[in-house]
Amino acid sequence: MKCRKCEKEAVVKLRHYNLALCQEHFFEFFEGRVEKAIKKFKMFARGSKILVAVSGGKDSVTLWYVLVKLGYSADGLFIKLGREEEVRPAYDKVRKLSEDLGRKLLVLDATEYLYGFSTFEAARILRRPTCSYCGMVKRYLMNLAAYENGYDVLATGHNLDDEASVLLGNILHWQADYIMRSYPVLEKTHEKLVKKVKPLVLNYEDDIKLYAKLRGLDFLESACPFAIGATSKLYKRLLNELEREQAGVKLSFYLNFLREKKEIFRVKESRDALKLNSCKICGYPTTGEICTFCRSRELLEKGIKDRL
Amino acid sequence: MKCRKCEKEAVVKLRHYNLALCQEHFFEFFEGRVEKAIKKFKMFARGSKILVAVSGGKDSVTLWYVLVKLGYSADGLFIKLGREEEVRPAYDKVRKLSEDLGRKLLVLDATEYLYGFSTFEAARILRRPTCSYCGMVKRYLMNLAAYENGYDVLATGHNLDDEASVLLGNILHWQADYIMRSYPVLEKTHEKLVKKVKPLVLNYEDDIKLYAKLRGLDFLESACPFAIGATSKLYKRLLNELEREQAGVKLSFYLNFLREKKEIFRVKESRDALKLNSCKICGYPTTGEICTFCRSRELLEKGIKDRL
Repeated sequence: MKCRKCEKEAVVKLRHYNLALCQEHFFEFFEGRVEKAIKKFKMFARGSKILVAVSGGKDSVTLWYVLVKLGYSADGLFIKLGREEEVRPAYDKVRKLSEDLGRKLLVLDATEYLYGFSTFEAARILRRPTCSYCGMVKRYLMNLAAYENGYDVLATGHNLDDEASVLLGNILHWQADYIMRSYPVLEKTHEKLVKKVKPLVLNYEDDIKLYAKLRGLDFLESACPFAIGATSKLYKRLLNELEREQAGVKLSFYLNFLREKKEIFRVKESRDALKLNSCKICGYPTTGEICTFCRSRELLEKGIKDRL
Repeated sequence: MKCRKCEKEAVVKLRHYNLALCQEHFFEFFEGRVEKAIKKFKMFARGSKILVAVSGGKDSVTLWYVLVKLGYSADGLFIKLGREEEVRPAYDKVRKLSEDLGRKLLVLDATEYLYGFSTFEAARILRRPTCSYCGMVKRYLMNLAAYENGYDVLATGHNLDDEASVLLGNILHWQADYIMRSYPVLEKTHEKLVKKVKPLVLNYEDDIKLYAKLRGLDFLESACPFAIGATSKLYKRLLNELEREQAGVKLSFYLNFLREKKEIFRVKESRDALKLNSCKICGYPTTGEICTFCRSRELLEKGIKDRL
């Protein structure tokens, strides 16, 4: 099988694009998809100060690598969600990547905000589902780090499979608000809210893994041990099954949704532009008076005292 | 395990309703769901003259049986889509049911309209996909039979799984028109168009099969040999997988769609109310000048002549 773009032997066959490519042209194609997403969704410009949230997994590692390779000014952010020894393997890989790329790495220790507890321990104390609690902490701290360090935009490694499966889940349960808010860019709608973007949104998860492997990027293979059995995985599995019979459907499902959502769905202004206040404790955005992060910190403090 | 409604031992456990029932109360529950759909979607009244399209499969056989049991005035319609020997097994079962129920059975021979060919042969001659061609012929002849024999409403055996899976497919491919038109009742919007209803739309396919078996109804086990690998089966399979992990999701997905569709989706008037003309050849409704059925008959005639 020959590469579609040159005479070399193809090393990859991308079923969803019906495209066979040699390694060199696969790299070019893959990076082109990232550049395309950045332009198409007006994520950021050449001179923007970008902060990439890097967990050490294939997506964020690839994202940081590609953004720097494309010539963007992108630093990394690593959040320690667990104790030192738990996060070491991921942290080591991310620090090494930072050195290889010659880009700054910000490090934030979540436990310092959670009275010494890891997010997993804090979730247990608060009796909150681990994944949703950890996600809330991550979102809060990512935004805080980007804001306090003067970045224009925060980039995360969410890929096509992530976005399409979340959309599918929201549709199956008709979460109208979430359906309408589904977009690879979240604009700055509050003084202390940094614009958020997902530049890998046009890339299939399988392709990202392939790219990372072929580039020899060092990433953490193991998924978060707490995410086993997560509902998002169920929707991903369904979409993968569908994709096997209808190659390309994942991309067309997601892209056509974005293209037609204003045509198909009623846009409720009140839903679209959530009124954001400033948290009375920390000043960061919230829809209420006190943000979820500060409220959960209060409860955590109380929970700790009650235990004594 | 006890029946939820009485002291007897339960014979069925309906996971999707989290409900264990004895046989007697399962029958009552099942028939209640059919009555509920009839009322909820204003399908027909006590005195309505109903024609049930009966293929001999579990859905249509159950539908006819339940409607008569509930006291509705429901006759049957059997359409011979293939040659005599091909349709005999189904026809025999339907004729027997007609006798058992003491209700009239109309029989229409599709081959008489197709120059002696079965729908499958005609589809091959016309190089049309078998399922879509056969569906078109069935819809045309069902309506014709109901109209010419003075029935108020035509009932088909589409169940919850059918409707939910078609909806899912239309969403995955963002067929906005089809999404919006998805409803268990199709109103009479043309002089020669009989109102169409789907009274089994609140019943899970598995429950229908169970009901038919427990009632000792004789139905054709084998699905249409041409439907193997149909895309609709793929969406059903995906929903079944989902249902295994989230019991009840199929029903809530479909019902919440119906409940919220005007809230969630933009209703395009032009899409909602299709302008229907009368076919210049047969007088039945069409969006163009000549209806698809008559046009395909013309092509079939030409195809046969060209072959000679």
